[in-house]
Amino acid sequence: MKKKIKKIKAAILIIGNEILSGRTQDKNIAFISNWLNSKCGISVSEVRIIPDDEKIIVKNILTLSKKFNYVFTTGGIGPTHDDITAQSISRAFKVKYEFHEEAYAILENYYGKKKFNDGRKKMAKMPRGSKLIYNPSSAAPGFMIKNVLSLPGVPSILNSMIENCKKYLVKGLKVHSKTISLYTVESNISKQLGLIQKKYKKYVDIGSYPFFRLGKIGVAVVTRSSSMNKLKRVNKELISLVKQKKIQILKI
Amino acid sequence: MKKKIKKIKAAILIIGNEILSGRTQDKNIAFISNWLNSKCGISVSEVRIIPDDEKIIVKNILTLSKKFNYVFTTGGIGPTHDDITAQSISRAFKVKYEFHEEAYAILENYYGKKKFNDGRKKMAKMPRGSKLIYNPSSAAPGFMIKNVLSLPGVPSILNSMIENCKKYLVKGLKVHSKTISLYTVESNISKQLGLIQKKYKKYVDIGSYPFFRLGKIGVAVVTRSSSMNKLKRVNKELISLVKQKKIQILKI
Repeated sequence: MKKKIKKIKAAILIIGNEILSGRTQDKNIAFISNWLNSKCGISVSEVRIIPDDEKIIVKNILTLSKKFNYVFTTGGIGPTHDDITAQSISRAFKVKYEFHEEAYAILENYYGKKKFNDGRKKMAKMPRGSKLIYNPSSAAPGFMIKNVLSLPGVPSILNSMIENCKKYLVKGLKVHSKTISLYTVESNISKQLGLIQKKYKKYVDIGSYPFFRLGKIGVAVVTRSSSMNKLKRVNKELISLVKQKKIQILKI
Repeated sequence: MKKKIKKIKAAILIIGNEILSGRTQDKNIAFISNWLNSKCGISVSEVRIIPDDEKIIVKNILTLSKKFNYVFTTGGIGPTHDDITAQSISRAFKVKYEFHEEAYAILENYYGKKKFNDGRKKMAKMPRGSKLIYNPSSAAPGFMIKNVLSLPGVPSILNSMIENCKKYLVKGLKVHSKTISLYTVESNISKQLGLIQKKYKKYVDIGSYPFFRLGKIGVAVVTRSSSMNKLKRVNKELISLVKQKKIQILKI
């Protein structure tokens, strides 16, 4: 009997006024989502961006951690007053916000006893019972408590830590994806695309995305499925549709 | 008596599997947020990214439209089967999903009667009672129903339409912002920053964001307030802190 692998869903909770205000362009959503799908077979089903506000963080942590298998937070785990993710998650789960012994040792060793000031010590404070997510860039670890994994907001540091989340995650079904880029307009193929989507509704998800390249209008038809066979079958139908309509293919 | 201007809050609801999956990097959040603040004095307080799923869209429209003054949606108003924003919002507000007379005329005129096929006609279907948001790039209008404004997902088209939202929005207090970029580490100033934030808690929001530039570590201290005077006062305190600590200033 084949082992049945469950569909595993995650949410991403971006914590930070700088993203909400538009000052900083988020780069973590696409990175985490791509990594989760390709390396762990986990799909991101919802993303929220919220301000550095304890009440709002608490509420969102409780909602999302009940609704999804995992919640990834980014931002708010640094040394300054506006870094309140760890204390907010402690409050959400009603556990103590306290020094994590190993995190404290890691940071003390990294900075040296003399330079290990209060701001830096703050980065060793976490919800009681947290497991560490090691940080090869700048030492300060992320943490996991229940099904919530907290990572920093700086993309280069987050990227360097993501592999260290893997051991805490139950793997799911990877979603495969194929893209066919066409020089046509959406309305030229919308009817037939809709029919193909209807036929394969259960197995394959078809998306249609217009683009502009070198002054020409095009459509990227993206198919996604956890079954490679079904994906191939749908793409065969798409190719014959394209040939029948004499549409120029830019890229398969 | 001075006219009191209210704080006006908006949410952004990004509808699209392509953003959730990480295939496409979102660019609309920062653009809309910056525009709303600088042109209308409206702050974005929450962002959500959700899949092309009617039930989920309905639920989020109802939640966010109750919670905030305005909701901006992006994506899902094109001609293909996965464009279900307009029908989902109709369902959320229990109004008919039908042809909008003016939108129909605009599109028929743009494409010409012969080329005005079913896919294109679909873009004229909206919740009954919608007001149009004109589209100078590709004709197909966005729409506003109740406090929800729906825009397309393609950034260049969205950008060309945003000014046409203005007439529907009640203006609020603009949030001013100043950034001081320093060559230092966050933990060097975290204690004093926290004290200054505490002192001006009611008026000014201070954020601290580490960065790496040309191999050097720095911190951007961002202050935000609807009072320019309070903002200046806080920045004066910040500059004297920086001078006292002999920190090199990269940019004010």
